[in-house]
Amino acid sequence: MSAALILDLVGVFFFAVSGSLLAARKGFDIIGSLLLASLASLGGGVARDLIIDVEPVAFYNPLYLAPPLLAAVLVYFLISHIERVSTLLVLFDAGGLGLFCIVGALKAVNEGLNPVAAILLGVTTAVGGGLLRDVVANEVPALFSGELYALPAFLGATLTVALAMLDLFNVVTGVVVAALVFILRVLAWKAGWHAPLAARGTGPAEQPPAG
Amino acid sequence: MSAALILDLVGVFFFAVSGSLLAARKGFDIIGSLLLASLASLGGGVARDLIIDVEPVAFYNPLYLAPPLLAAVLVYFLISHIERVSTLLVLFDAGGLGLFCIVGALKAVNEGLNPVAAILLGVTTAVGGGLLRDVVANEVPALFSGELYALPAFLGATLTVALAMLDLFNVVTGVVVAALVFILRVLAWKAGWHAPLAARGTGPAEQPPAG
Amino acid sequence: MSAALILDLVGVFFFAVSGSLLAARKGFDIIGSLLLASLASLGGGVARDLIIDVEPVAFYNPLYLAPPLLAAVLVYFLISHIERVSTLLVLFDAGGLGLFCIVGALKAVNEGLNPVAAILLGVTTAVGGGLLRDVVANEVPALFSGELYALPAFLGATLTVALAMLDLFNVVTGVVVAALVFILRVLAWKAGWHAPLAARGTGPAEQPPAG
Repeated sequence: MSAALILDLVGVFFFAVSGSLLAARKGFDIIGSLLLASLASLGGGVARDLIIDVEPVAFYNPLYLAPPLLAAVLVYFLISHIERVSTLLVLFDAGGLGLFCIVGALKAVNEGLNPVAAILLGVTTAVGGGLLRDVVANEVPALFSGELYALPAFLGATLTVALAMLDLFNVVTGVVVAALVFILRVLAWKAGWHAPLAARGTGPAEQPPAG
Repeated sequence: MSAALILDLVGVFFFAVSGSLLAARKGFDIIGSLLLASLASLGGGVARDLIIDVEPVAFYNPLYLAPPLLAAVLVYFLISHIERVSTLLVLFDAGGLGLFCIVGALKAVNEGLNPVAAILLGVTTAVGGGLLRDVVANEVPALFSGELYALPAFLGATLTVALAMLDLFNVVTGVVVAALVFILRVLAWKAGWHAPLAARGTGPAEQPPAG
Repeated sequence: MSAALILDLVGVFFFAVSGSLLAARKGFDIIGSLLLASLASLGGGVARDLIIDVEPVAFYNPLYLAPPLLAAVLVYFLISHIERVSTLLVLFDAGGLGLFCIVGALKAVNEGLNPVAAILLGVTTAVGGGLLRDVVANEVPALFSGELYALPAFLGATLTVALAMLDLFNVVTGVVVAALVFILRVLAWKAGWHAPLAARGTGPAEQPPAG
């Protein structure tokens, strides 16, 4: 197996665990867990492959079905304290984010897309699966949760495209970029780092006007 | 018309009725009914065709627009007792599930996909439209409703691929598989058959820890 | 730039503003605003391009990233009265609807699709982005809001295909069609024009039966 395939499968596994953990938190059954794991882990990559018009690997390489299966089984046997679930979910989701922004951007560069499109595709790959997971489970998407989420993925995809264009992308620099994205996302979550609100003039959401 | 096209159109009609019934239950208007019928009945097949990179039949063959139109009109004129709607919705949805897992798996086999990918595509075709229908109408997807839903579709897709590989798939065996999926899904709903929860150690969802 | 590209980019900008305005109303941050603007403005076109199997322009032409960026910045600096947001959202959404049903239908005609498929693709392009925007932000889609929404888009796509087939489509007739769709949609919203309910026999939604 190539390094790129291994990175991809590890990212798939991380997002799959995030899907199964969300299924556990929502009280879904084990089949729902497998399905949400599959959607979270394979959805972003299928969207990516459809956009660049290549065969969606998730459907053509049966290897990609192993991580969701493994995730559903692990969550079934290992999760017994519901309190830990939310933290684990953020950590695994951040791990997937770190790897997928790289995999998506690299695949785009290899298909000959221009740098801007490659960055965009990296971000889409990274945030797509988690978005599908949250929308289908009727959660506010992590993407809109308030802490920085897309920004670390954007940074990771940009660094990946820059490194690839300078011929400096390899397993070592790749792991450094993934770790950076992961740490940035987890720090943003822990510390509650927020970007400014969408409209400067508005107060916090749903706040009634002061009487 | 080939037998495969007829089976497909009947499946499209079943899912279209499920969409119009949900629209009725949600109090949508007749145009919303037509749109939800279209999404429920054509969404899974469009996803399937995009994945195997063929022209989405729903957009290229105008025949596919007849079932959603018919469903919206029938539901408009025939539904007058709101209580019946939920039961009818499950029955028509189960009928679509039974036919679509077959149609999707067969189309994948004919396109030369490997058996695992063909089963996966059958399940995706079968659950995709209903998932879109429920997400867009802001319902908990039937897929995560608690009773077995994806499992009958998985069984149907697996049997279809096995029969096709043994050259035993024909209208008779096809109808038997569809009936089996339909009966299994309806029994699971009636009897409340559940799979184990996603996490062994957790209790039912949203339960506060015992004080 | 061709007239078609300019029309498309203006439509993208209108839907992008609708996305950023919804983000402001939901209390999302400025990155969520950019993402919702991108999804609302580029989602329908990406779906359209995947269906007719051409490269999704949003990913291949960096020009398409300017409108969402501009929308997020404008909403950030200009919106200070939350009350105005809902009205502006409907107006910009209606503007996008008017342009996208034309752009989608024209692109389909140019790709050689039959007239019915071209109309369908026009409607899908027009309503797709707004549907994604609303589903992801956990709103009842404007599509099912009760006032006419898809019908003006259907009318616009039909007129566009008819004009294109009669060789009468040009910038002037295009602007007339877009204005017609816009006015019809805004009037339907202002006047509360409703289509009949999905089921003739049912009362308004969620109404308990009279005791």
